[in-house]
Amino acid sequence: MTPIASEPSPFRSREEKLAERAEKREAVLRAAVRMFNARGFHATSLDDVAASLNVSKPTIYHYLGNKEQVLLECVSRGLEMLDAAAARARLQSGTGLDRLREFLRSYAEVNMDDFGRCVIRTGDEVLSAEGSRRFRALKSRIDAALRSLIEEAVADGSIAATDVRLTAFTLAGALNWPSRWHRPDGPMSASDIAIAMVDILTAGLAPRSAANDAPQPL
Amino acid sequence: MTPIASEPSPFRSREEKLAERAEKREAVLRAAVRMFNARGFHATSLDDVAASLNVSKPTIYHYLGNKEQVLLECVSRGLEMLDAAAARARLQSGTGLDRLREFLRSYAEVNMDDFGRCVIRTGDEVLSAEGSRRFRALKSRIDAALRSLIEEAVADGSIAATDVRLTAFTLAGALNWPSRWHRPDGPMSASDIAIAMVDILTAGLAPRSAANDAPQPL
Repeated sequence: MTPIASEPSPFRSREEKLAERAEKREAVLRAAVRMFNARGFHATSLDDVAASLNVSKPTIYHYLGNKEQVLLECVSRGLEMLDAAAARARLQSGTGLDRLREFLRSYAEVNMDDFGRCVIRTGDEVLSAEGSRRFRALKSRIDAALRSLIEEAVADGSIAATDVRLTAFTLAGALNWPSRWHRPDGPMSASDIAIAMVDILTAGLAPRSAANDAPQPL
Repeated sequence: MTPIASEPSPFRSREEKLAERAEKREAVLRAAVRMFNARGFHATSLDDVAASLNVSKPTIYHYLGNKEQVLLECVSRGLEMLDAAAARARLQSGTGLDRLREFLRSYAEVNMDDFGRCVIRTGDEVLSAEGSRRFRALKSRIDAALRSLIEEAVADGSIAATDVRLTAFTLAGALNWPSRWHRPDGPMSASDIAIAMVDILTAGLAPRSAANDAPQPL
């Protein structure tokens, strides 16, 4: 028998269905993260998220689960982006400081994006004990990645940190904060802000002696 | 006539009443700020604050007003402490960098204390439009104080900042963050953490040339 599907079938293939499902799930996640960031977790209702997409609340449950599950998915996405940034930085050539700077720049940029912003703005206190445990475990992966990049830069002499833990907190804190003040429609792009802040953190405040800026003998 | 109050009077003087009122108000404020910090604004009820002091909710209203008014009083207290720190730093002798460091250390310490922690943990989104306007106005005083200390340090050559605004955000962000991770019962005191973080921010990451650490000719 000859296949009769010469006209486009109104029934979608399995691949089309999967792609459509992934796209819808993504739209729900993006709408939710923006509402969490704008209103905070408690003031966000999944009814409002659903309404913003012209769907019903059960549709949100279907794709992502209850409000805490949606939030955990948002912060997990942000933390995966930071994890990927650490992996990319580790592959860079150059000194330990070069790799650390590369990670810090990406870290700052992710924190100015929707999902990274949600990581920063979410306090443990809004989550259940189990949710909070998962969130903390994910965050400690990123903290460990940052500390090992600092340790490697200390080891090759490209930075001079004496307290790795406190250096990690200081750098992370400075680069977490743009999630509170950065406006996507502001005068500087996230990328420009990230570069400038990492330069400030690398150079420190006190002026360097001219000798330090002179070209290396080799 | 000779006064007959040879025994202590069971009726309190006006001064005693005022002092007692101030003490009670302070106890309510301290209980509230700790609950806001532990649970977040939305999850805090004035009933619970009242219960923690063995008083009724109307007692809280009597001393401080509704929940938003209580929160605004908490953040105002924190911001007054930061304002006082800026005033003290301005009176210090030494270079602009010395005064900036003095302010940054106090800033970090206040942010690890109850009221400063509340300033950092309170997002604009939990406040009414009017409350948010007041909160932002108070915060911008501190931001202006920080920027002017940076400008003065640039002017006397003791620091080398090129972008004052972004330098202020970078320093403030790093020193805001301990309000998220610092535990009062942790291994380092707030004061030790503040000193170490300000040193990290002053020195930057990259090692300095030996020439830079040498004593000044005069």
